[in-house]
Amino acid sequence: MKNAILASTSTLHGQHYLEYLLPEIKNLYKGASEVIFIPFARPGGISLDEYTKKAGDAFKMANIDLKGIHEFEDPEGAIKNAKGIFTGGGNTFLLVSELYRKKLMQPLREAIFSGAAYLGTSAGTNITGLTMQTTNDMPIVYPPSFKTLGIVPFNINPHYLDPDKNSTHKGETRETRIKEFHSINSQPVAGLREGSWLEIAGDKITLKGSLSARIFEKDKLPYEIETNSALTDLN
Amino acid sequence: MKNAILASTSTLHGQHYLEYLLPEIKNLYKGASEVIFIPFARPGGISLDEYTKKAGDAFKMANIDLKGIHEFEDPEGAIKNAKGIFTGGGNTFLLVSELYRKKLMQPLREAIFSGAAYLGTSAGTNITGLTMQTTNDMPIVYPPSFKTLGIVPFNINPHYLDPDKNSTHKGETRETRIKEFHSINSQPVAGLREGSWLEIAGDKITLKGSLSARIFEKDKLPYEIETNSALTDLN
Repeated sequence: MKNAILASTSTLHGQHYLEYLLPEIKNLYKGASEVIFIPFARPGGISLDEYTKKAGDAFKMANIDLKGIHEFEDPEGAIKNAKGIFTGGGNTFLLVSELYRKKLMQPLREAIFSGAAYLGTSAGTNITGLTMQTTNDMPIVYPPSFKTLGIVPFNINPHYLDPDKNSTHKGETRETRIKEFHSINSQPVAGLREGSWLEIAGDKITLKGSLSARIFEKDKLPYEIETNSALTDLN
Repeated sequence: MKNAILASTSTLHGQHYLEYLLPEIKNLYKGASEVIFIPFARPGGISLDEYTKKAGDAFKMANIDLKGIHEFEDPEGAIKNAKGIFTGGGNTFLLVSELYRKKLMQPLREAIFSGAAYLGTSAGTNITGLTMQTTNDMPIVYPPSFKTLGIVPFNINPHYLDPDKNSTHKGETRETRIKEFHSINSQPVAGLREGSWLEIAGDKITLKGSLSARIFEKDKLPYEIETNSALTDLN
């Protein structure tokens, strides 16, 4: 019985870290006295302790204690026994490398499939797809694999950005990058704009937040789905 | 005796493909009757033949014949004997994967170090750094290594984009991404804006084009260098 919130971003413009997600956080972790934080993505290169303090301060607003996975003597056991887990954003390559290096990818997958309440933001959402291959991040470290948790049967592109029609920049648009992905991969990609999240309840997947999302399927034109739509059959 | 042009982009806004580089192309390949094109990066997922035709049409403006490396029965031999080579942009992960898979990375390095005239644009420039880890591209395929040609003793970030101070988007800026790179890697990064290129003549590296470039060194504040400056000592 999966129970998860997969958010495009941790923070909305003009708001505090996790502010817009606080009602979801309170609801998601109902009954969990302590939530485990996975800080490995280290946004901007900050330390694991700094990042855990930042996330812990935000979780205090929801009266939830957060403990960094790196503070446990037995991280694998901690994941197995966790009632609630939060993986923060940052660099997806670093996050995935550390999860493999510490042998936590499979235990994390099993915990979420067994019902541990899971929140992901940005990189923490990216790893819930089949692979991390639709990340926007720089490959700052070489992970042993691009395969990720497969909590949803497709890939996710967080921080999805529409093409800027007025731009004179010739770097690829997000849409072009995802088209390149589909030239050699077949799974669909859900482009989640900032402020959107996927709510996972058992096998049901629902788009939440105020915005529509953009769905990319191989050999099809991309299309929009409205908020509160089900993505349960996307695969 | 290296002889290379490493350009940030193939195309400037409002111009045709390679248009602004035509004078450089004519000069670089002086004396080469045929230039080999490496189309593996396949921008937008186009085919090797389509991409070779596009590049060949542009090279015709400089009266140079271009032949795709995939058209040779012995690609390794072709690289070894080449007087001129051009690697086009697209997806860097795909380009690097194919160069390794076809065992062309080392021959390409040796050819350039032996004096084959080399033009890179975008992904074709990214691979001339020590590693491809400061690419902007999506990891659409898993390459056997991130190590690249090391034609210059640092990394390159093509299509370098300054942070947009008016943006409300919370995805990482290019500068933040490079800072994350430096949290676990030590080589400098040259951020080349569109319209800039590096001219390599032997061991001399010079910034060309009308713009300044932004240089990132680990544990230092990023700084600008003016066009016509030498980067020979950056390492």
